[in-house]
Amino acid sequence: MEPDLSLLSDHVRELDVDGYLIHAASTDSNQRYLAGFGAPDPFVTLYTPSGLHLLVSGLEYGRAQKESHADTVERPSDYDLSEYRQQYPEHEATARMHADFLNTYDVDSVAVPETFPLGTADGLRKHGIEVEADADDVLTVIRSVKTADELDHIRTVQAANEAAMVAAEDLIATATVSDGVLYDDGEPLTSERVKEAIEIELLRHGCALDETIVACGKDAADPHNRGSGPLHANESIIIDIFPRGKASKYHSDMTRTFCKGEPSDTLREWYELTAEALSAALDAVEPGATGADVHAAACEVYEDAGLPTFRTEPTTEVGFIHSTGHGVGLDVHELPGLNPRAGELSAGHVITVEPGLYDPAVGGVRIEDIVFVTEDGYENITEYPIDLVVE
Amino acid sequence: MEPDLSLLSDHVRELDVDGYLIHAASTDSNQRYLAGFGAPDPFVTLYTPSGLHLLVSGLEYGRAQKESHADTVERPSDYDLSEYRQQYPEHEATARMHADFLNTYDVDSVAVPETFPLGTADGLRKHGIEVEADADDVLTVIRSVKTADELDHIRTVQAANEAAMVAAEDLIATATVSDGVLYDDGEPLTSERVKEAIEIELLRHGCALDETIVACGKDAADPHNRGSGPLHANESIIIDIFPRGKASKYHSDMTRTFCKGEPSDTLREWYELTAEALSAALDAVEPGATGADVHAAACEVYEDAGLPTFRTEPTTEVGFIHSTGHGVGLDVHELPGLNPRAGELSAGHVITVEPGLYDPAVGGVRIEDIVFVTEDGYENITEYPIDLVVE
Repeated sequence: MEPDLSLLSDHVRELDVDGYLIHAASTDSNQRYLAGFGAPDPFVTLYTPSGLHLLVSGLEYGRAQKESHADTVERPSDYDLSEYRQQYPEHEATARMHADFLNTYDVDSVAVPETFPLGTADGLRKHGIEVEADADDVLTVIRSVKTADELDHIRTVQAANEAAMVAAEDLIATATVSDGVLYDDGEPLTSERVKEAIEIELLRHGCALDETIVACGKDAADPHNRGSGPLHANESIIIDIFPRGKASKYHSDMTRTFCKGEPSDTLREWYELTAEALSAALDAVEPGATGADVHAAACEVYEDAGLPTFRTEPTTEVGFIHSTGHGVGLDVHELPGLNPRAGELSAGHVITVEPGLYDPAVGGVRIEDIVFVTEDGYENITEYPIDLVVE
Repeated sequence: MEPDLSLLSDHVRELDVDGYLIHAASTDSNQRYLAGFGAPDPFVTLYTPSGLHLLVSGLEYGRAQKESHADTVERPSDYDLSEYRQQYPEHEATARMHADFLNTYDVDSVAVPETFPLGTADGLRKHGIEVEADADDVLTVIRSVKTADELDHIRTVQAANEAAMVAAEDLIATATVSDGVLYDDGEPLTSERVKEAIEIELLRHGCALDETIVACGKDAADPHNRGSGPLHANESIIIDIFPRGKASKYHSDMTRTFCKGEPSDTLREWYELTAEALSAALDAVEPGATGADVHAAACEVYEDAGLPTFRTEPTTEVGFIHSTGHGVGLDVHELPGLNPRAGELSAGHVITVEPGLYDPAVGGVRIEDIVFVTEDGYENITEYPIDLVVE
């Protein structure tokens, strides 16, 4: 299923430009989405209301013709790159080829993503092409509303994610405890060992990840700490897994917090509050509500309990110190946001809802579900149970 | 060990600008290298001959202070971002903060990498900062010469890579053959199964990879085909593994070609020629030789045997249809190149040497070693044997 680009067509007309241009490898999700094609080195995708045109390396030419969404695919040998290279330095030769490519489609002005490479933009400008950074980054807006196929991809990755969380929780459940440290098969059970189990389970389900969080105690009190070393009993262990489907390239994202043994009263209370904040935030999710509304619902639960948030204490380093969630798709962090400045939710949005509390004196707690915004509310595709104590 | 930035200091003076600026996440290797710090969302790094200055999100502030190379680390709350957000749209508020940050260090003009985001550049220009794309992309030049620590990282990843290749070759060696198809434990041995074994072995060695190539028969005849489905006897199987150390972020890269059973005479001949091309190319590696010289040495072996290369037939789709190699470091493809336009090699360069031959009627053959350029030649850090037939 190809994406619906009518919004892009409207946007190009509104900006009064001839087309929309991307120059990036497919690690750039706007590129992958618009071209419908993956390549490790940068290539050029031109959208105009009358067609989609690719300029790729000779090595990628055959595959781009087969796999991409493009109406036409060209390569440097269709232009005068070799001749230009004999007369000009590499960046100027490439700029001339890019300008020739745009001229082929009668394009004199383009909008581009904010992240478009400056070198390419200034090269085109020197050859009379108007290049305007799109302050609305419209492709990220378009990408935030998912097609049925995209939702299926995310559902598949979330199923793998839940299997990986089972593998992780099982290791904690079957661990023995000695002197407050968890042991597995006579060795201390480390964050690294749990991450390895998570990754192997994900691999078996066709997923990969760059990083994962298995953070215990003080590590868990820093939301960006990935965790390391032996896991301890009676402390919180945050496990946050955000894998990518290797074929589909879509992500999912889920967090659970566990405690082996006896959590402190404060940890128990924080866990219950966080489950309540999750519930309150989810209740606020529906088309037309804003990401700011959903964030406010989570903040209120914490603030009513007398705990700090960025709303009540903008420079606090303890309490609820991040936003309530984010969109998920080709990027693990994408639109829409759930934060004080975030706009309206729409059906087709895929978001995480992930309140949490942090304090080095207590540890960290975060519970994160991933949900689809639907016409009449939301569908929570997260099935993993919400339980602190692992036995 | 921090990188030697004297070349960057010289370059900034030559370009007659006040500093060098990066705005990117640490997935951008120039950013990771210059900042000495990894973060998943874009942040700003300013180099001036008098110091290195970071502007990171509040969430990354503590970690950036501890881990980065920077002399100073600041965050949005050190500037007027919140006030600007009340008056201006997001991109304008951010542009004002960036301009204020540069003004703090008396910087009115900056050079930036070619890939610097256009939105950020144009925002700064509106506020009177001169922004110039650095056509020499000097950081990629600086990064190409490795420190002793960087060489150690690459050596470590290559050791993991060799262990993964052993796991792959073992699966092929122990496979049984029925009707020309390889079987493992009663199931057809697929490209996917071999890739899983490679990835699990790499994980156990602290490495990861986004993609790997296990391509058989016709798949192997396309150098960018990742391979899929059952592996066959008597055909070539190209295995190309390019993992990244998860902690160090440095890569290695190695390819071997295997055949289970009886290769055709042509396949045998191509394998021997490719081993010879590898050897000839390696003989040409020394400081002062150019990447073009090394590429020519490989081409000559094939051309002497009457096989097509891009030099003799620029549009050929069979024969030796790629460059002879590339630099390896934080990026799996970086400077220097080994191609007709590539410049001089220096001690400290890390390069792959990877001649190959491709034709759908025969299959594909590629042999790739990774070597360090040294003061008096090169050190080949690849220990894996070069043998076609797997028994």
